[in-house]
Amino acid sequence: MYQFEAIGQVSSCYSEKFGVPRQPGLVSAATARFTPHPPYNREEMVRGLEGYSHIWIVFVFHEAVSEGWRPMVRPPRLGGQKRVGLFASRSPHRPNPVGMSVVRLERVVVESGTFYLDLSGVDLLDGTPVLDIKPYVSYSDSITRAEDGFAGEAMVEQKVVISPEVMAFCNDYRKSTGRDIEALIVQTLESDPRPASQRTVGREYGVLLWDVNVRWRVEEWGFLVLSCGRNVGRGLRG
Amino acid sequence: MYQFEAIGQVSSCYSEKFGVPRQPGLVSAATARFTPHPPYNREEMVRGLEGYSHIWIVFVFHEAVSEGWRPMVRPPRLGGQKRVGLFASRSPHRPNPVGMSVVRLERVVVESGTFYLDLSGVDLLDGTPVLDIKPYVSYSDSITRAEDGFAGEAMVEQKVVISPEVMAFCNDYRKSTGRDIEALIVQTLESDPRPASQRTVGREYGVLLWDVNVRWRVEEWGFLVLSCGRNVGRGLRG
Repeated sequence: MYQFEAIGQVSSCYSEKFGVPRQPGLVSAATARFTPHPPYNREEMVRGLEGYSHIWIVFVFHEAVSEGWRPMVRPPRLGGQKRVGLFASRSPHRPNPVGMSVVRLERVVVESGTFYLDLSGVDLLDGTPVLDIKPYVSYSDSITRAEDGFAGEAMVEQKVVISPEVMAFCNDYRKSTGRDIEALIVQTLESDPRPASQRTVGREYGVLLWDVNVRWRVEEWGFLVLSCGRNVGRGLRG
Repeated sequence: MYQFEAIGQVSSCYSEKFGVPRQPGLVSAATARFTPHPPYNREEMVRGLEGYSHIWIVFVFHEAVSEGWRPMVRPPRLGGQKRVGLFASRSPHRPNPVGMSVVRLERVVVESGTFYLDLSGVDLLDGTPVLDIKPYVSYSDSITRAEDGFAGEAMVEQKVVISPEVMAFCNDYRKSTGRDIEALIVQTLESDPRPASQRTVGREYGVLLWDVNVRWRVEEWGFLVLSCGRNVGRGLRG
């Protein structure tokens, strides 16, 4: 038995599991911050890291821990039809629920002897406990000739259209927060967050991105984003 | 605090820390076997994994656990001269001593409902406890455009010459065990296992590969492999 303690935590735009991309790098507009806990927050611990464009976040699938695991799973990539072995998948429901994501390192920020990291392209839930940070070393981590099994099958990108009201909301939101929520919405929906079992035209969905409730409808041709509203009891600002 | 249990163990050609490659993939002749513990050894848990050429081994640096960690380290890549932050390195001495290595999956072997995995290109010590097995998915794991920091600096490959006696030993050993110990010796020494602080010409070293004691000497032009002998009280067979 091994005991591990979180060295820090990620705060991200993904406030709930629904909507989190299934792999990192799919949604470049998905930004996040890694904040280390003391004593792991001393700036010398990341000295030299700024020379790397990408880093590994080794983390705990904290919302999957209590749900346990099964020997076989139905990966969304296979349309939820086919089962594969758990160790042939990247499912969060594992005997040791440890995840690893390569993310873009936007900035190493040093303030009065401590540091935090600004990240993008994340597939990490807000509040994710982090076990380790490692530099991405392409000479050993990047296997370009790898055969990918079923994960190599082409992903169908959804067409996403934003209503004029939503566009106006996004512009306002960007002005007040600096966050490009429009790109975040489009990229998050393009990679289709729906469970494979739910593919009915006309159905509506909601997702929480930062503090914004986003609603969209499934059309014959893709997704139409209907409305956006601030979460904290502010209602629609569209 | 998180508690994790090993799902299995790696047996490899590297019986001691000295000689273990500093990254996976450097020594293709470095073979190993992953053997899962029950209940993680049921064959359905790896169904579909045979379609992948490479897998991630998430493991515990078990021989580093008791040694603790420091905020800064001297990576061998930088000749042991320069210090960098621990999180800017892949050092085994970390707050949570979890490692991850991408290795080639040679074979998934199924026997009476259980499985084991034959691997190559490992940088794993014999007896390494494994926390997780994940498929290597190049569309998210392979970042070809990554900037590498200091790890991108060219590694100097050592020239390795094998004495005729050692060559004869390797041929015999291969006949009796099926193991290509010659390739393993050459590749392991080419990537220079010496600590950065020890670079004296004339010095002799020994390394244990499988059950074979290998001795070599540092020459002006590289390494000369002097002798090989079986470990278990059998003495030289050269």
